[in-house]
Amino acid sequence: MSVSLGELAVRFGCELRGDPDVRVDRVATLAHADSRSLAFIANPRYRQQLATTAAAAVVLDAASAGDCATAALVCQNPHATYARIAAVLYPPPAGPPGVHSSAIIAPGARIDPGAHVGPLCVIGEGAVIGPRVFVGPQCLLEDGATLAEDVRLTARVTVCRGVQIGARTIVQPGAVIGGDGFGFAQERDRWIKVPQTGTVRVGPDVEIGANTTIDRGAIEDTVIEEGVKLDNLIMIAHNVRVGAHSALAAAVGVSGSTSIGRRCMIGGQVGIGGHLTIGDDVVITGCTMVSHSIPRPGVYSGGIPLEEAHVWRRLVARFKRIDSLAIRLKALERHTSRGTDQEEDDE
Amino acid sequence: MSVSLGELAVRFGCELRGDPDVRVDRVATLAHADSRSLAFIANPRYRQQLATTAAAAVVLDAASAGDCATAALVCQNPHATYARIAAVLYPPPAGPPGVHSSAIIAPGARIDPGAHVGPLCVIGEGAVIGPRVFVGPQCLLEDGATLAEDVRLTARVTVCRGVQIGARTIVQPGAVIGGDGFGFAQERDRWIKVPQTGTVRVGPDVEIGANTTIDRGAIEDTVIEEGVKLDNLIMIAHNVRVGAHSALAAAVGVSGSTSIGRRCMIGGQVGIGGHLTIGDDVVITGCTMVSHSIPRPGVYSGGIPLEEAHVWRRLVARFKRIDSLAIRLKALERHTSRGTDQEEDDE
Amino acid sequence: MSVSLGELAVRFGCELRGDPDVRVDRVATLAHADSRSLAFIANPRYRQQLATTAAAAVVLDAASAGDCATAALVCQNPHATYARIAAVLYPPPAGPPGVHSSAIIAPGARIDPGAHVGPLCVIGEGAVIGPRVFVGPQCLLEDGATLAEDVRLTARVTVCRGVQIGARTIVQPGAVIGGDGFGFAQERDRWIKVPQTGTVRVGPDVEIGANTTIDRGAIEDTVIEEGVKLDNLIMIAHNVRVGAHSALAAAVGVSGSTSIGRRCMIGGQVGIGGHLTIGDDVVITGCTMVSHSIPRPGVYSGGIPLEEAHVWRRLVARFKRIDSLAIRLKALERHTSRGTDQEEDDE
Repeated sequence: MSVSLGELAVRFGCELRGDPDVRVDRVATLAHADSRSLAFIANPRYRQQLATTAAAAVVLDAASAGDCATAALVCQNPHATYARIAAVLYPPPAGPPGVHSSAIIAPGARIDPGAHVGPLCVIGEGAVIGPRVFVGPQCLLEDGATLAEDVRLTARVTVCRGVQIGARTIVQPGAVIGGDGFGFAQERDRWIKVPQTGTVRVGPDVEIGANTTIDRGAIEDTVIEEGVKLDNLIMIAHNVRVGAHSALAAAVGVSGSTSIGRRCMIGGQVGIGGHLTIGDDVVITGCTMVSHSIPRPGVYSGGIPLEEAHVWRRLVARFKRIDSLAIRLKALERHTSRGTDQEEDDE
Repeated sequence: MSVSLGELAVRFGCELRGDPDVRVDRVATLAHADSRSLAFIANPRYRQQLATTAAAAVVLDAASAGDCATAALVCQNPHATYARIAAVLYPPPAGPPGVHSSAIIAPGARIDPGAHVGPLCVIGEGAVIGPRVFVGPQCLLEDGATLAEDVRLTARVTVCRGVQIGARTIVQPGAVIGGDGFGFAQERDRWIKVPQTGTVRVGPDVEIGANTTIDRGAIEDTVIEEGVKLDNLIMIAHNVRVGAHSALAAAVGVSGSTSIGRRCMIGGQVGIGGHLTIGDDVVITGCTMVSHSIPRPGVYSGGIPLEEAHVWRRLVARFKRIDSLAIRLKALERHTSRGTDQEEDDE
Repeated sequence: MSVSLGELAVRFGCELRGDPDVRVDRVATLAHADSRSLAFIANPRYRQQLATTAAAAVVLDAASAGDCATAALVCQNPHATYARIAAVLYPPPAGPPGVHSSAIIAPGARIDPGAHVGPLCVIGEGAVIGPRVFVGPQCLLEDGATLAEDVRLTARVTVCRGVQIGARTIVQPGAVIGGDGFGFAQERDRWIKVPQTGTVRVGPDVEIGANTTIDRGAIEDTVIEEGVKLDNLIMIAHNVRVGAHSALAAAVGVSGSTSIGRRCMIGGQVGIGGHLTIGDDVVITGCTMVSHSIPRPGVYSGGIPLEEAHVWRRLVARFKRIDSLAIRLKALERHTSRGTDQEEDDE
């Protein structure tokens, strides 16, 4: 795939500074680009590389344009424009319409003739696969699973019974959508499995990362709203709701029945307790434990940066005696203000 | 599937308050139930919904029965009774007895004629599949893997060589049971792989969540005792033992050779070090780091709830200087009791 | 497989104390060994078991040899020597050379005639499989994926398009190598997917654990250097580099564009932020949050061991007021040294 700068400028609404007939066929970083490559700059700390890049052209904003030694595609949001151009140069692998001969299709499955179903897939009874859907190799759709138009299951994705996936949603390999929620009733010292009778509804334009798991609801559904982006190895428990356009980094865990608002950003390895409500526009930095609801927008944290081990051990030892510190301070305050000889309380 | 209240009362030992001929065919929450739905109440905070629910009947305990505006199935443990009734209304998907024509079965595998082996499964040499076992699509049993009666591998489960799984155990998609333990000998600056010659023994009535991994033992076996419940994305390292009826929430990691007692409850994302012994009846709340053994029953914690980022940064900065705080306090105590002018030690 | 002690001594350069004709055919722990078993001792705390073990022979170092009641294979590094002997006694499962009839092979894939490709694999266009490679059941190699000689994909491994895997590397089930990196451009309140045009390059002698995910690079490649050992459920984000011979325990998360040096050891559940540089020979203990670069070798920590919940709650409450503690201490210092009656500042 090769495209001219003039065509890119017209198609993506950029101001072109340079020769419209120059063609690019790949992307590269500023440092490693060559005369067939398109680069971009969104982070000012790379600006000095603009003077020396060998790229055919650079996608950038007006503020950076003056520093650029080569052709420039000037736009307001270079990262987003770059993303759109890269999608033209690197179209996702497509399969031919139709069902691979090795796939196992239940008689009652409904597969749009324009959809692709790859080798060794299993498509269950009553499953529905919409127009232009790509179902990569070795995927599984259990009975009644539904994929709206242009959904893309890259490979080896498990979509359990009755799960609904919205248009254009992309799922990476190994993800499991609709496994049973972790629901058990305690009876004396044993656990009785509670059938998980809900399902999962995933909105349009969602992305679900590799080996991420989204459990089906206990009675009602687990819901991932439109535009949500989930990284790898995330756990979404039963009856969670993730609001539209929120982005969760890798290894986040969200416990049962918690609701996350719209446009939230959750850092890696954050753990969120059950039955909580996180409002809209909440940002939580990585490795934070969330044990209560967060009604207000803002940035929240809970991780403590590391130290050299011997320093850290000392800090922890002091922390474990912080109670004594507080009590002794109180005693000292009392002693000082009263001017008595009362000894500090070292409990 | 539809069933009368009278039948449910008899079968599950409930006192029925209402018309025994009324039939239900689904479950619902109190808020969303209709005249064909059965609901339940186990948590008193939903009790006010009893007055207005449109459910055909509600499973509840004697204390709540008076508030219920509709028919009631009164029992001691409504959650457990609800679980059993829901299992009647929602029987797990069954497959026809026999082996799907697309499955690849080694000549020496022994498969009970009443078992179901789904499409595109691979069953290795010497594998044993017991009566009424359900092996869902795309599962893998390596050589010598054994499934006792009524085991249920929902789909795409990997059971590695020689792994034994007890009766009625349920495994969710993507779980890997019996991958190699992480064992390496250090030799100069390199790692030499130590063959993992043990296997995994999983007891009866266990549940294993989606994409959870349980590694095979280095020499002896990794053991999951009866009734254990493991949520999604859990890591059980080699030679771990998890005691009967313990429940581990999602993303817990248990390091090698650690033993967890019976009836423990471990919260999400807890990390447990290696070669430790956790006794019976230990409860550990989410996001806790466990670096030493816990001999006594009790509730243990180690996570610090989040704050707004600017507040948190201040707390962390103070914490990093807690040593100085302690030293200065000590100096002040000395100074005050001696009445000298000695300066505080700010180290 | 059975082998004589004499043969082992010669082959692995041990000094044999005992009968060279005694044969062993399995390994065991000192405590559970019998007269056909080989045991080893690397940890002095098991030394007392040397007097009573029923093993045919024990692999040990000169310092332990005197305590051993049975035959001994004396060497400098008993753990490494044991590992090599165990690999002789327990050769990894091999498959016959050739491609299983149920595998789906693209016409342009190049598969060495000595390689094994198991049942229900899918091998994409342009994929290359080298000599003596083992591709276990249900693996997927997307277009252009390359496996060097003696690579071992145990089962159900996903190797995405263009990923290169070095010689002798072993991958456990469920791992996903080369899924899309988590890259999105923000545009108003929405996320635009940034095509991930790089791939993953994995060096020789690497091990990758079950359900671990390694994302492909955004523009350039994600790189795992030779000899790296990755445990289960690890997340390696796009454009990360892990230096040679580093070992990462389970559930570690490494965020995008971070570089980890050589010979590092990273404990379980450690979370490492993005765009950081961790130098060579860095050890990080489990459950640590890494939010800044670590230029110098050393041992680093950041986890706080648990306490009984009621103790922990008190510690946390004090910690949340540590600011007040510091301010009050400062006030007291001022008061004491000045000898005024100024009240403590309780802000």
